Amino acid sequence: MDFTELVRTRRSLREYSDEPIDDTTLEQVFAKTAMAPSGYNLQPWEFLALREPESKKRLQEVAYGQEQVTDADTAVVVLGTTKPAAHAEAVFEDWVKKGYLPDKEAKARLIENVTGMRESSADNLRRWTTRSTALAAMTLMYAAWEEGIASCPMEGFDSEALVEEFDIPDEYEPIMLVTLGYPAADAKTLDRERKGRRPVDEILHFEEFEPAEATTLTLPLKD
Amino acid sequence: MDFTELVRTRRSLREYSDEPIDDTTLEQVFAKTAMAPSGYNLQPWEFLALREPESKKRLQEVAYGQEQVTDADTAVVVLGTTKPAAHAEAVFEDWVKKGYLPDKEAKARLIENVTGMRESSADNLRRWTTRSTALAAMTLMYAAWEEGIASCPMEGFDSEALVEEFDIPDEYEPIMLVTLGYPAADAKTLDRERKGRRPVDEILHFEEFEPAEATTLTLPLKD
Repeated sequence: MDFTELVRTRRSLREYSDEPIDDTTLEQVFAKTAMAPSGYNLQPWEFLALREPESKKRLQEVAYGQEQVTDADTAVVVLGTTKPAAHAEAVFEDWVKKGYLPDKEAKARLIENVTGMRESSADNLRRWTTRSTALAAMTLMYAAWEEGIASCPMEGFDSEALVEEFDIPDEYEPIMLVTLGYPAADAKTLDRERKGRRPVDEILHFEEFEPAEATTLTLPLKD
Repeated sequence: MDFTELVRTRRSLREYSDEPIDDTTLEQVFAKTAMAPSGYNLQPWEFLALREPESKKRLQEVAYGQEQVTDADTAVVVLGTTKPAAHAEAVFEDWVKKGYLPDKEAKARLIENVTGMRESSADNLRRWTTRSTALAAMTLMYAAWEEGIASCPMEGFDSEALVEEFDIPDEYEPIMLVTLGYPAADAKTLDRERKGRRPVDEILHFEEFEPAEATTLTLPLKD
């Protein structure tokens, strides 16, 4: 589907039908997700897809009981590694091979830089991984919608409880949840007017930053 | 353009032509950006677009001299507010009006919740705003590419120096930079094979999370 049309029609939807997402379609959605950009192409993202009713129930318990977690065909825990160099060797070897880096010395210097980021504060590393991983999460939601699969990004969950429940290793950080499923035929959300957005002239500032004094809402992308 | 095709062909590109982006096209790109999802639809994003050579030069000085900042038609500083309730009143009023919330009491409770997030640590708030703002930044890059405008996301800049140079108020956080411009006809990047990505079976985990032991790179979305 046309990207403009995707943006125009995408809704964050929590009401799903029972129609299952087939494995090939899900794989295709994640093939697109995998193509997202990231700082230094380090691809810090990981996706834990829960499809079994029992697993989704466990996630729901650490997500304040939100119904869409079990109603969805697939509930995805979006994780980011906080180890910048986790994939650096393979990534920079690829750069040398394809001509993005001149030689092995340039590669060694880059690996050293990226490994050095590890010395940054834990908070900086969590923000670093949040940034690139969210780029992939947005790609996931557009790729899903292109297949007619609705999504709902969620940040309401108990991060520590989630890490404990799903035995997430220390160097991974839960970034957000994304539920995926075909829209319910009678989804109430689809009967409602789309939620408003801040207009372009309030969010886009030229040459200097002066925040708008008030918030107005409209639909910047016209139907 | 088809979203699959956008994902397949998008490259992070630093080599731009001199062809200017016209105002209407830029506005249309940001109209799509504005439609991105965000937690509670709070839309914490702001975009400072630098188009004057002098402004881009000032940004380049706080971005380690990277050439693409001045070579681009437009260099965008992507900012996020760390005040979750900045737009809450307007956003939840819109929910009441459109039937997403039953009444004014429900609205008052939500505003209270969101205002309470302000008590969270500064680091949590920075991570919160990074998450939603990066969703908009990814939308910006796809929307640009749909118009044939290439982009390069950048996280290499001195955040404190940027805040000082552009007089960014305390409650806003620089999330990343995105340069925008039409590709140079002789862009070397376009002659090179696209940078590899971690394959779906390494990033997608079903039911339990076991990180892959090694990194391999391929192009998950086939040409």
